Amino acid sequence: MDHSSLRDQIAAFQADYIRCIDNDELEHWPEFFSEDGHYSVTTAANVKDGLPAGLIRATNRAMLQDRVSALRHANVYERHGYRHIVGLPSAKVSEPGRAEAETPFMVARIMHDGQTQLFATGVYRDVFELDGSRLRLQRRVVICDSSRIDTLLAVPL
Amino acid sequence: MDHSSLRDQIAAFQADYIRCIDNDELEHWPEFFSEDGHYSVTTAANVKDGLPAGLIRATNRAMLQDRVSALRHANVYERHGYRHIVGLPSAKVSEPGRAEAETPFMVARIMHDGQTQLFATGVYRDVFELDGSRLRLQRRVVICDSSRIDTLLAVPL
Amino acid sequence: MDHSSLRDQIAAFQADYIRCIDNDELEHWPEFFSEDGHYSVTTAANVKDGLPAGLIRATNRAMLQDRVSALRHANVYERHGYRHIVGLPSAKVSEPGRAEAETPFMVARIMHDGQTQLFATGVYRDVFELDGSRLRLQRRVVICDSSRIDTLLAVPL
Repeated sequence: MDHSSLRDQIAAFQADYIRCIDNDELEHWPEFFSEDGHYSVTTAANVKDGLPAGLIRATNRAMLQDRVSALRHANVYERHGYRHIVGLPSAKVSEPGRAEAETPFMVARIMHDGQTQLFATGVYRDVFELDGSRLRLQRRVVICDSSRIDTLLAVPL
Repeated sequence: MDHSSLRDQIAAFQADYIRCIDNDELEHWPEFFSEDGHYSVTTAANVKDGLPAGLIRATNRAMLQDRVSALRHANVYERHGYRHIVGLPSAKVSEPGRAEAETPFMVARIMHDGQTQLFATGVYRDVFELDGSRLRLQRRVVICDSSRIDTLLAVPL
Repeated sequence: MDHSSLRDQIAAFQADYIRCIDNDELEHWPEFFSEDGHYSVTTAANVKDGLPAGLIRATNRAMLQDRVSALRHANVYERHGYRHIVGLPSAKVSEPGRAEAETPFMVARIMHDGQTQLFATGVYRDVFELDGSRLRLQRRVVICDSSRIDTLLAVPL
């Protein structure tokens, strides 16, 4: 796979990923990860200080499915709306069948009264693997720029 | 047209479309639609409830031209500034010469006093047709995430 | 270079450029410009009124390096975080080895208390030259939508 088509494929992946979340199709969200895919959410300050753990940490797809179930049960009320916008990924092939990328994002939250706020910004630090012709996340670290992310815990990023 | 070049072409279309609006070249805006192109603005809540009509509805290019004329006459005062950012489209070819896409957007509004606000977020749900080598919109449904869109009526989205 | 690959190359350039700034690797920022590259920051109102000068103006790479040094000395306190998102560039080749592009951007600022604000929006109006296989900016005019940009002076855009 040449470099341009790889970046193109990763960009398409990110578009599908955020579309899945923003369309509230959370049940499909774990499919973007490999069976033993890691997903964690942390802050830029934690990363800078070399702190390993984030606020959310899952080490396989089943844990992500559990998380979705929990969200569905917790959110008996209609949830807020979210809208992700991702920028262009910067990507590199680290070894055959494996790629790394960094992709910036912004997320807006739409409150029930219609107010729209800039909710979170940050960067996805990803390791992808090729599963047949499909990319899957072997590892996604969501690094939020702000350290105020308690309210982030509700929605996948 | 292969899938990658289609997505590329739609992305270029979206870039030109928002540039036309943000540069206040509204007179060229109807040219992004086919002669009998549909344009409507609605809300995610309306779509979810199966309500057909939106707040704005035009069913051909001439109606869009009328709309631009009305805006020019209404806005005797200098208008606010707007800045659109679109994400990557997810696209599919539905039949030869025809493509469908969903593209998320964010719009900032810049007030006269210089304040900048997140004004609207949502998704373009589009049907494109190939008019020669040029894409045109056969149908654009602008789905705003927020239901508070009375103020949206001023500017094309 | 065909048109599609040019736009792709410029998009990759923009992704690398904002990543450099948002990762606080400012020392590498001047390398995105040619030796005699121009960089200026101005406002849409100034451009509209035909006012030539902006608020920041540098006419070669050494001036940009000086600027970074000054920023490093001025910011004895930890700086705010910034997050850029750029849209798709609209690009054209103006002559062999030279391309022009317009690329919209949004910048969020993350305050020390964790608050995130929409900080600036605007458009990059760029002239690129090919330096070997690498693009460099011969000229970047950063046109901010808002005229309230005194606080912008702190960070490269």
